[in-house]
Amino acid sequence: MRYIAVFDHFLTEAHRRQITETAGNCGFSVTYCTKVGDIPAEERGKYEVLYGNPQPADFRAFPNLKWVCLSSAGFNQYVDDDIYPSPDVILSNSSGAYGLTISEHILMAALMLLRRMPVYFRAAAEHRWQAAMPIRSLSGSRITVLGTGDIGTAFARRAKALGAAHITGVRRTIRPADPAFDDVTDFAGLNDVLPRTDILVSALPHTPETAGVLSRERINRLPAHAILINVGRGTAVDQQALMDALNENRLAGAALDVMVPEPLPSDHPLWTTPNLILTPHMSGNMSLGETCDIDVDMFCADVERFARGLTLAHAVDRKRGY
Amino acid sequence: MRYIAVFDHFLTEAHRRQITETAGNCGFSVTYCTKVGDIPAEERGKYEVLYGNPQPADFRAFPNLKWVCLSSAGFNQYVDDDIYPSPDVILSNSSGAYGLTISEHILMAALMLLRRMPVYFRAAAEHRWQAAMPIRSLSGSRITVLGTGDIGTAFARRAKALGAAHITGVRRTIRPADPAFDDVTDFAGLNDVLPRTDILVSALPHTPETAGVLSRERINRLPAHAILINVGRGTAVDQQALMDALNENRLAGAALDVMVPEPLPSDHPLWTTPNLILTPHMSGNMSLGETCDIDVDMFCADVERFARGLTLAHAVDRKRGY
Repeated sequence: MRYIAVFDHFLTEAHRRQITETAGNCGFSVTYCTKVGDIPAEERGKYEVLYGNPQPADFRAFPNLKWVCLSSAGFNQYVDDDIYPSPDVILSNSSGAYGLTISEHILMAALMLLRRMPVYFRAAAEHRWQAAMPIRSLSGSRITVLGTGDIGTAFARRAKALGAAHITGVRRTIRPADPAFDDVTDFAGLNDVLPRTDILVSALPHTPETAGVLSRERINRLPAHAILINVGRGTAVDQQALMDALNENRLAGAALDVMVPEPLPSDHPLWTTPNLILTPHMSGNMSLGETCDIDVDMFCADVERFARGLTLAHAVDRKRGY
Repeated sequence: MRYIAVFDHFLTEAHRRQITETAGNCGFSVTYCTKVGDIPAEERGKYEVLYGNPQPADFRAFPNLKWVCLSSAGFNQYVDDDIYPSPDVILSNSSGAYGLTISEHILMAALMLLRRMPVYFRAAAEHRWQAAMPIRSLSGSRITVLGTGDIGTAFARRAKALGAAHITGVRRTIRPADPAFDDVTDFAGLNDVLPRTDILVSALPHTPETAGVLSRERINRLPAHAILINVGRGTAVDQQALMDALNENRLAGAALDVMVPEPLPSDHPLWTTPNLILTPHMSGNMSLGETCDIDVDMFCADVERFARGLTLAHAVDRKRGY
């Protein structure tokens, strides 16, 4: 018998049955725990696989570890080889589980900003019946999406279905992306696209290349009617430049689900910046049942591949960072 | 020469040029005004057509009036024959100009309620980083739309494109509707549909038949996770029953863009009802440029029909009320 430890923070009874049955058919026994301390030290040597949200500091407790499957898409805490008992341990993530929920979040945030909901929410809080004009439409808009993976593609498809005029995907290297993107460029090409962007979306992971990509200079290239939505990682955006643009009405609005730092301290100036919608890194978490279902499905499919010695579908390149 | 008076509250210079040129080609001269007093009393007899937002009390000032084209979709202030110099005056409305903007409003409101934005906005106002779980997806949801005209259809098409599982249209009489509706029922059939509705949308005009259609009994048939969005007329909803359901957590949320009365007094209990998004009847107004463009296009096309003695595309039946 071989062994899997699941660090559980979102599973339903049905999910556990699905994992136990799939793993059992592949010769694995599954232990469910919430932290490494739940597994006696003398038994940790038998586990080859960890799934869920184990912490980086946990890995070296498992000397015979072969594969860590994160239930998250982001993995920048997990790139350092030193946290693993061996550099050969495979890391996989759950990119693919979040496209649905995060694309709906982007769509919501875009419509809220185009239709000036921050103004309406403030008026309603003060019991004031007051119009805010003009509003704008998603239909006919020009959209630029940083990151053409699962999340960026899921949003581009939805925006296209809702009548977006033109969608540009931006990625590290220029390669074909999903047909929902009208064209694809790289970070160097971004400068030319920004002045004709109505809606700018960042779905970028944190890597050395993406940190600071939305610099002050680039933010200032956006037209004053543009809106910016970040659902990737907070490090992509120069937050002071964003606050300056919003405070000076050089940008119509922004929505940040990710920021620096998280959690945001209660005295941070982002909280009081006008036309800014802040949400606490919730666009892609496990609060949507469908996300959990997809996450478990993807892990189970990779358990079957792992048992047969095949390449995992969701393995990541730790050195590249995504 | 024949004459048209335009009661202007939203036209751009380009719109005026378009109207003047189209009308001129049809033998009409156009006067732009903002109120009836702008036209000298002795000249009013020459006007056959009014367009824009003339008031019901204005019509009898124009003894030779033949056609009134409202720039709005709603016309319940205009159904009484007594306000017209003759019962033969044709009334047309601008149903068709609002589908785009109102369907985007419905979509925004649905996503905001499914993703619990009223909770997040309150937390953000208090500078609190706090998660609200669980959230839900538009994809896979069961939607019921009251009213299968321009607005209901525009929303149903968008919801279908975003993965709604099932969309039921509800109309006065059971007749085929747009293919985006999976099925169509009438108000009697609504009772059976409500218990399996996740998202209930009302895009109903005010008529004697629609007043009170979302009664206490019907609101109470909705499941506790359901949300209700009203963009039609406020009279459709029993507001006290809605407030009771929201206050007692028997309904997950609601968004009202229309209500009784409008404007809502600052001490009205709707302002303080939980999980309720209130907007001041702005979902379909002229604040979206595309709405104005379509409105003018529709009027111009009907001017050409009127000049040739053809039936107008947007004439309404004042007795039926829509």
